[in-house]
Amino acid sequence: MAQFNQTISVDCVIFGFDGEQLNVLLVDRTLTKEGQEIFSDLTLTGNHIYEDEELDNAAARILFDLTGVKDIYLEQFGVFASPERLNHPNDRQWLLANGRNPDSRIVSVAYFSLIATKEITLEWKGRNVKWYPVNSVGTLAFDHNQILSKALAALRNKLRSAPIGFALLPEKFTLSQLQKIYEIILGTELDKRNFRKKIARMKYLIPLNEKQKGVAHKPAQLYVFDRDIYEKSKTEMFDFSI
Amino acid sequence: MAQFNQTISVDCVIFGFDGEQLNVLLVDRTLTKEGQEIFSDLTLTGNHIYEDEELDNAAARILFDLTGVKDIYLEQFGVFASPERLNHPNDRQWLLANGRNPDSRIVSVAYFSLIATKEITLEWKGRNVKWYPVNSVGTLAFDHNQILSKALAALRNKLRSAPIGFALLPEKFTLSQLQKIYEIILGTELDKRNFRKKIARMKYLIPLNEKQKGVAHKPAQLYVFDRDIYEKSKTEMFDFSI
Repeated sequence: MAQFNQTISVDCVIFGFDGEQLNVLLVDRTLTKEGQEIFSDLTLTGNHIYEDEELDNAAARILFDLTGVKDIYLEQFGVFASPERLNHPNDRQWLLANGRNPDSRIVSVAYFSLIATKEITLEWKGRNVKWYPVNSVGTLAFDHNQILSKALAALRNKLRSAPIGFALLPEKFTLSQLQKIYEIILGTELDKRNFRKKIARMKYLIPLNEKQKGVAHKPAQLYVFDRDIYEKSKTEMFDFSI
Repeated sequence: MAQFNQTISVDCVIFGFDGEQLNVLLVDRTLTKEGQEIFSDLTLTGNHIYEDEELDNAAARILFDLTGVKDIYLEQFGVFASPERLNHPNDRQWLLANGRNPDSRIVSVAYFSLIATKEITLEWKGRNVKWYPVNSVGTLAFDHNQILSKALAALRNKLRSAPIGFALLPEKFTLSQLQKIYEIILGTELDKRNFRKKIARMKYLIPLNEKQKGVAHKPAQLYVFDRDIYEKSKTEMFDFSI
């Protein structure tokens, strides 16, 4: 039977977009003793890696166990290895209750992931999993607030040089939805005209002969993201921004 | 006495610029047995972290032990954890000769660093340290070719959104030297006029009332990078590139 490596774990910060807010997937963590609840809080989805397992495969395994889906966008963005990261009393209790040594050094290699839909079935080792708006996440377990914070910065930084916003949208989307994603991630309002001028240059943003259905307002035109065209255009990008 | 953590190490990919080429700092690794040389190759500068040590501090310690200098630009860019990474026969021999178990899992958290000058005194635990052009590095120890490769990609990527090229230049430099850095890192020739137009927008690029000295050609104007102005302007950058 495959052994877990005691020192190295992977944590996945999974982002989703519901049309209004950027959300993050968090798992319930409740410690009970003799039927009494000691404490309850939230954590990111994570797991130790197997002794013979690559990091990327561990992250993909976690995502697959959670969603039943493969090939989800995953990006490694940092390692969290503070000697203090598991030192909070709640965390020490949790580790002890799970047969772990609370003084052992465990580092976490963190990935962020982008999921387009909320309709996937979410399950994580029998515990409750829910979407929470990133702006109203309370105190998380371990150093997961720090990991989430760095994930947001990594997401923001990545969006500046690669069109990853599409990974959060449904297959067909409107330009207003695309602008909303950029505004939410970059944390600022963008001028509509400038935005549309900029994205007009995206050769991989393809307008469809189709409009929105079932909306109260005037239906807007739908677009898709053409991954093949994007992959080809990537090799031409020797540009840099100031 | 502080203990080393057996699983976690840090490797530093240290880049330098000599006016012509991008170079990387490599350390001699020679295995001798009973006075006979078994093999000789090169490695990056790295070390295990201490049990109570933060990753960033470990990287800074390695740089300081190597150069005697603090506050050198350092950026964490990835973790290398393949179960196979230490499996080459030379590597197993080296580990055994150094009293290490060649079957143990050791992961490396990798940083890249940029050094402006070659005039620092380089020393690494009594072994030879030299600059090598990144384009003509041969087969390195362990998975260090892969680490170097990823470091170059990370450097290229970072340059697209932050003016880190300055960290490789002397305090005062010419625009031609700056363009050379961008061309070498991005791996392509840039149009001189377009480049100058772009950098003219850099508020933190300050022309001096001074020209080059001791050059055969017509002396060019010298510039400096104003870090304070850059730090202030960073908060205004909500731009993104396509």
